[in-house]
Amino acid sequence: MTVSALAFDVFGTLLDWRSGITEAFRAGGVAGEPGDLADDWRARYRPILAEVNEGSRPWGNFDDLHLATLDDLLDERGIDLSLEERHRLVGAWHRLDPWPDVRAGLDALRGLRVTAALSNGHIALLIDLARHADLRFDCLLSAELARAYKPAAEAYWTAARLLGVAPSELMLVAAHVWDLEGAREAGLRTAFVARPLEYGPDSAPPTDPGADESVGDLLELAGRMAG
Amino acid sequence: MTVSALAFDVFGTLLDWRSGITEAFRAGGVAGEPGDLADDWRARYRPILAEVNEGSRPWGNFDDLHLATLDDLLDERGIDLSLEERHRLVGAWHRLDPWPDVRAGLDALRGLRVTAALSNGHIALLIDLARHADLRFDCLLSAELARAYKPAAEAYWTAARLLGVAPSELMLVAAHVWDLEGAREAGLRTAFVARPLEYGPDSAPPTDPGADESVGDLLELAGRMAG
Repeated sequence: MTVSALAFDVFGTLLDWRSGITEAFRAGGVAGEPGDLADDWRARYRPILAEVNEGSRPWGNFDDLHLATLDDLLDERGIDLSLEERHRLVGAWHRLDPWPDVRAGLDALRGLRVTAALSNGHIALLIDLARHADLRFDCLLSAELARAYKPAAEAYWTAARLLGVAPSELMLVAAHVWDLEGAREAGLRTAFVARPLEYGPDSAPPTDPGADESVGDLLELAGRMAG
Repeated sequence: MTVSALAFDVFGTLLDWRSGITEAFRAGGVAGEPGDLADDWRARYRPILAEVNEGSRPWGNFDDLHLATLDDLLDERGIDLSLEERHRLVGAWHRLDPWPDVRAGLDALRGLRVTAALSNGHIALLIDLARHADLRFDCLLSAELARAYKPAAEAYWTAARLLGVAPSELMLVAAHVWDLEGAREAGLRTAFVARPLEYGPDSAPPTDPGADESVGDLLELAGRMAG
């Protein structure tokens, strides 16, 4: 089966969230090592998405969920921050820079296939990020449109339905094994992109032996798709 | 209230559907004057959308509805066309050219505001059209996401919700008074764009005295928004 469209995970796969969030903590003078604070905040992401998918928490978009997880982080560390300062930190997720290959890689891939963002972030957030980073997609798709967060199958199926393709014609491009596994369980093809710096220079880079393609960056993927 | 985002109607407002559909009838050698056939097909558009919105017809996307209205048109005229030929004509709605100001006008407006397509056409169709015409939006939105066709208020409200703005912060840009009136009833701001050639050189161009802005093309609108 031919791959007719590519769906891109955004946070971590296209954007270097850790540098931007670390800098936001540093600029705010929040107590603690800024990179640790960024990692701690991000580590609360999958558990809170699971609460939403399981129905133990009502639907919230990424601004809502980032504020809730930030409040938990600050409570646990006994840090007091004004609501204004907390909103500033949540807003930092709207202004993240891409990895160096992303702008050119997306343009090359858009010349070969239909390209869509497929993020757990909501559409308004994705718009801000794409404008900030000057990234061009054919369209922005989000778990918000399925009201189910990845790795729930509905998130991937909704993307395929809106793109007008079968799940098996859609390839998820992502740096995270849990996302790629969710996509495979929903019947999608998968491409793993290595982002060894996502969690900082001392982290252990993952691998995904189950992926159809495994590449070092988007330009390598464009070479494979053109070949 | 500031206008923070612009939503663009697509067929007729950005794209010259009549030239493309006329050419598709001509190329197919369908009996009848090609421009008349195009106008006849297009005239069946609002009635069938109303059937869907009223619940007397199940949800169908634009490919489904264009095939149904084409079948009606051919039946009434006693024209026999193969299913392959009918699919070719339906597919012509995926490859329409923009009016001359549109590419530059959209780029200028995207530098000033968030820009979204907001069409009754489904997302997969909008992707094909934006790729064909090389049009860049911040995102593609569709009545498909609301499961209600414009001028139903839900179509406009869903767009505002996904863009993260109040209806009063969103301005619909369209060439059709019924669409602009629907947007105003939903609380949006409106900009009327004159497209006097939409229905051919002999048609009577409409005006919309109720619009917040009334312009000759998108570059004029960009001048107003920048001022």
